[in-house]
Amino acid sequence: MVSGGGSGHEPAHAGFVGQGMLTAAVCGDVFASPSVDAVLAGILAVTGDKGCLLIVKNYTGDRLNFGLAAERARAFGKKVEMVIVDDDIALPDLPQARGVAGTLFVHKIAGALAEQGSDLAAVKAAADRVNAGAVSIGMSLDTCTVPGSPKEDRIAPGKAELGLGIHGEAGIEQVDFAGAKAAMEMVVDRLAPHVGPGPHVALLNNLGSATPLEMSVLAEELAQSRVGDQVRWLIGPAPMLTSLDMKGFSVSLMPVSKADEAALMAPVSPWAWPGCLPVGEVTVLPLPDGLTPTQPAPSSNDEAAELIRHCCGILIAAEADLNALDAKSGDGDTGSTLATAARALLGAMER
Amino acid sequence: MVSGGGSGHEPAHAGFVGQGMLTAAVCGDVFASPSVDAVLAGILAVTGDKGCLLIVKNYTGDRLNFGLAAERARAFGKKVEMVIVDDDIALPDLPQARGVAGTLFVHKIAGALAEQGSDLAAVKAAADRVNAGAVSIGMSLDTCTVPGSPKEDRIAPGKAELGLGIHGEAGIEQVDFAGAKAAMEMVVDRLAPHVGPGPHVALLNNLGSATPLEMSVLAEELAQSRVGDQVRWLIGPAPMLTSLDMKGFSVSLMPVSKADEAALMAPVSPWAWPGCLPVGEVTVLPLPDGLTPTQPAPSSNDEAAELIRHCCGILIAAEADLNALDAKSGDGDTGSTLATAARALLGAMER
Repeated sequence: MVSGGGSGHEPAHAGFVGQGMLTAAVCGDVFASPSVDAVLAGILAVTGDKGCLLIVKNYTGDRLNFGLAAERARAFGKKVEMVIVDDDIALPDLPQARGVAGTLFVHKIAGALAEQGSDLAAVKAAADRVNAGAVSIGMSLDTCTVPGSPKEDRIAPGKAELGLGIHGEAGIEQVDFAGAKAAMEMVVDRLAPHVGPGPHVALLNNLGSATPLEMSVLAEELAQSRVGDQVRWLIGPAPMLTSLDMKGFSVSLMPVSKADEAALMAPVSPWAWPGCLPVGEVTVLPLPDGLTPTQPAPSSNDEAAELIRHCCGILIAAEADLNALDAKSGDGDTGSTLATAARALLGAMER
Repeated sequence: MVSGGGSGHEPAHAGFVGQGMLTAAVCGDVFASPSVDAVLAGILAVTGDKGCLLIVKNYTGDRLNFGLAAERARAFGKKVEMVIVDDDIALPDLPQARGVAGTLFVHKIAGALAEQGSDLAAVKAAADRVNAGAVSIGMSLDTCTVPGSPKEDRIAPGKAELGLGIHGEAGIEQVDFAGAKAAMEMVVDRLAPHVGPGPHVALLNNLGSATPLEMSVLAEELAQSRVGDQVRWLIGPAPMLTSLDMKGFSVSLMPVSKADEAALMAPVSPWAWPGCLPVGEVTVLPLPDGLTPTQPAPSSNDEAAELIRHCCGILIAAEADLNALDAKSGDGDTGSTLATAARALLGAMER
């Protein structure tokens, strides 16, 4: 199995080369398809008697160069099949949908079949079926910075764009950014009409410069969303198919059969693959024995209470100053630690 | 083994909980240490007869809260030891060095020993030894955005700061940013005086919002740097101990014995651990048989050459326009693909 395309989408696709996924990745310049010669060299370097599946995202340059390379490889006597991934549902009027992060479903499931020794026809059929079932859409607070090109200032501060492409192509609409919950709701609203009944896998992709903490919050919002009950497995959150430094995320969904489940969970060697984990309730354990606080009978002393409230207020108001002062000695967490303790104390006094 | 501290450093430390690394992570609010009660609950929840090692980064809040929790856990009859990680060499005049990404060396090596059944004293001794050998320093193009606090504009566009802290604390100096090579050279210059002879492992940490592509370029620059020959193993590049959305990186180095090598390479279940891979020469294979281009004898036709040069020039000049036009139909790579082909053609004509 060979994939590739323009660079700028790391770890896709070189990061997914290894046992259980791709055999080779052919990378072009940033956002430019690799040449026909490069793709052909990749195919010939790794293709044996069993043949080769090319996994190509649906962009003009990639279709052209991988397609011509496939023809030339066939002229060398190689068995070559090609799947064109077109999972993006952002622009329904587009005659040809784009290929985005759902490509990873294809890498993983077709890769697991190939690893088990399935023949090229079966691997190609699985790849086509996965692509047909996969739907994806992205959202971002900003476009990406393309090296050597002026930065587009299409997305104003405080705005987010829904459905933009992985090369920064304009999406469906710009919306006011109102936090992670609202952002995930908008994304899920677009995906939901494409989601049939039954269990699904979700792939939560960091488009480049969203932070691990932000991505974790989005994962929780996805689990709590209207499709959350159907999301039984989660891949990520992690950067998988990025768009340089885009501050955004994409969600891909796919219905999952028992066979797909096994293929998605099969261990692989590329470490860029974050694994596929079951989504379930978080178990909350009782506090260990002896730690449950003994509740002292509160005494009523207005004067003492007032003093404590006053002190806590001072600590909370001084949080930023204390952090700044602390940072000068190289250690910037003391103000927040004290303010957090003061807030907890005030909360306890209200109860 | 229990670690933790303020949040905002994801995937540290919850992402490293699992077989072969941590048993639990106790997380506070963003950049604020967890409370003594929270740390104590964590210790009591996972600590059996063999005892517990607390891995704590050297910050006032963490030392205080983890230290008090350790005392209280001992009062419950638990065997608890603590290692304070202080691997940051950025500020040599600081009486107490800060704990940064070198903490991951401790998690991994002490974790491997604990997994093998070593006793608490041996695990603690290994953790202390690893901490003593680890040196780290970071560099960033910008500070981090702390939720609820005004963004500091300490680092001007075009500048980078060397040795800043993982809560955005000011570093040693601000420098002109002159690309990845110069940035890595500055970092390596600071680390080199602490590097003894023999093989080392490097940990290349994304501080939050650097892109996977940028991190890969930095990895190559590290391998080519003056300490590159000693770097026999590489962990990452990957986000491991981040600082919210900081656009920067850190490098940690540690001398490696045969036993350390085995501990670093031992497979673990947390997927946030990117693995430890040997650094070596990249093998360049000859082109597959039949692909080596037959060199046609170039004919000299100035008129045709001029026409081709002219067409290539038009395509290259039109790259941005074609990409923009293409993006409107949802597909933004065609301009770059054509311009890349035109550049290659011009290059071939010069030869």
